[in-house]
Amino acid sequence: MLIIGERLNTSRKQAAEAAEKFAATFIKAEAEAQLQAGAHFLDVNAGTFAEREMEYLLWMAKTLRAEVDAPLCIDSSDPVVIREALRICGKGMMVNSISAEKDTYAAVLPLIKEHECKVVALCMGDGGIPTEFENKLEIGCELVETLLRDGIAADDIYIDPLIMAVSTAQDGGVVALRMIQEVRNRYPGVHAVCGLSNISFGLPERRLLNRIFLVAAMSAGLDAVILDPLDKQMMASLIAAKTVLGRDEYCSQYLAAFRAHKLEQ
Amino acid sequence: MLIIGERLNTSRKQAAEAAEKFAATFIKAEAEAQLQAGAHFLDVNAGTFAEREMEYLLWMAKTLRAEVDAPLCIDSSDPVVIREALRICGKGMMVNSISAEKDTYAAVLPLIKEHECKVVALCMGDGGIPTEFENKLEIGCELVETLLRDGIAADDIYIDPLIMAVSTAQDGGVVALRMIQEVRNRYPGVHAVCGLSNISFGLPERRLLNRIFLVAAMSAGLDAVILDPLDKQMMASLIAAKTVLGRDEYCSQYLAAFRAHKLEQ
Repeated sequence: MLIIGERLNTSRKQAAEAAEKFAATFIKAEAEAQLQAGAHFLDVNAGTFAEREMEYLLWMAKTLRAEVDAPLCIDSSDPVVIREALRICGKGMMVNSISAEKDTYAAVLPLIKEHECKVVALCMGDGGIPTEFENKLEIGCELVETLLRDGIAADDIYIDPLIMAVSTAQDGGVVALRMIQEVRNRYPGVHAVCGLSNISFGLPERRLLNRIFLVAAMSAGLDAVILDPLDKQMMASLIAAKTVLGRDEYCSQYLAAFRAHKLEQ
Repeated sequence: MLIIGERLNTSRKQAAEAAEKFAATFIKAEAEAQLQAGAHFLDVNAGTFAEREMEYLLWMAKTLRAEVDAPLCIDSSDPVVIREALRICGKGMMVNSISAEKDTYAAVLPLIKEHECKVVALCMGDGGIPTEFENKLEIGCELVETLLRDGIAADDIYIDPLIMAVSTAQDGGVVALRMIQEVRNRYPGVHAVCGLSNISFGLPERRLLNRIFLVAAMSAGLDAVILDPLDKQMMASLIAAKTVLGRDEYCSQYLAAFRAHKLEQ
């Protein structure tokens, strides 16, 4: 299970303040805490700053690459920001995201090829985010096949079904789960990833819904996730899910987590 | 989601003491607490008493039928005990269990027909509990088909995959999940049920594993479960799972549970 730590996102107040003050100590501490808690990649996102996104994201990326030994997930909807960030970061990063939108695809594809990146591939096209399962599946499959044809290795593709909130679409979770299952079955080696918080938008006790959906998604074949690794209940659910889903040989990760007091609720 | 409350089982110390003392007040209070917390059926099991199982189970059943307005799940491996209990209880109960073992099947089938019972059908035969998925599926399918052929309605059959502990069989959970999915796909109307605690046998923090497995099993199609409805975290996971799995229209059950402070962890 690949874990992408989501805390270095300026939609979080503390991360926004750290970016504005160029507080390298905070950024480094957040990075280390996430890695310590089990993150494999660190998502960096400064999208809330619109005009200063480039400046803040590049600074965060530069700071992290100098201070921390972990790959980044460059999270921006602006291909120019992605391009400049990848110049700083070197090879082996992840890009969040590419999609089936023609302009985005054309702009991002050469960047991930040049810098040998993994890529989050969003199931949306120029018509927006499909809500029906069949439309979503069609767009998702076309996107995967195009990426494969364009020379991206299956192992570098992380399809994101784009979860719709269950508060607005009762089958929002089910559609995402079916997508994960279908894509993982049809394209061996291609991964499935998602952010979790959309599922619970508009409802109370969101963290409960988010972690329960994580378990359902892992059952459907999810093998990567963007989350807050410092959320202890979330991580305990993830570890327990790996164990009951047969992805933890001799339950050794579960027992290690227990000994490290990570499972106490 | 059909919930069968498991607390009136003499493997629990308090229930055993209550049976030995014929403490009707305790039995009634436990029953009401479980119903209040969401149970639809009340499991009654006195199997730990071997020679006095009949006496204690019949007393519990009689007490509950007199005091509480809820159907029972008569839980015994002895068809004679089941027969006597059903005589006391009347129609519409559940029997836990029948199996593909020839003698058990022959003894229990007429009882569930006569008393119009729902029945938990265990995936095991005269060769014991199969551990391989294929064997288990074969026995499970044969059992369902035999029950249908013998006149039991699909809606009255609750197939139990018999979970193996992940501590002894890494794929114990996965085999059960595949069984649930297959049976639910192949036999529309037939239900899937399980007890949860086997999954975590031999491991620490068992309640965490049990409730995480519940979510995975619900994703696979589980629509009935034997559990302790007073386990608040378990019930919150169940309610949240219904919501993210699209089984809670307008999220109304989730919101009601929130307002009743049932989701706080």
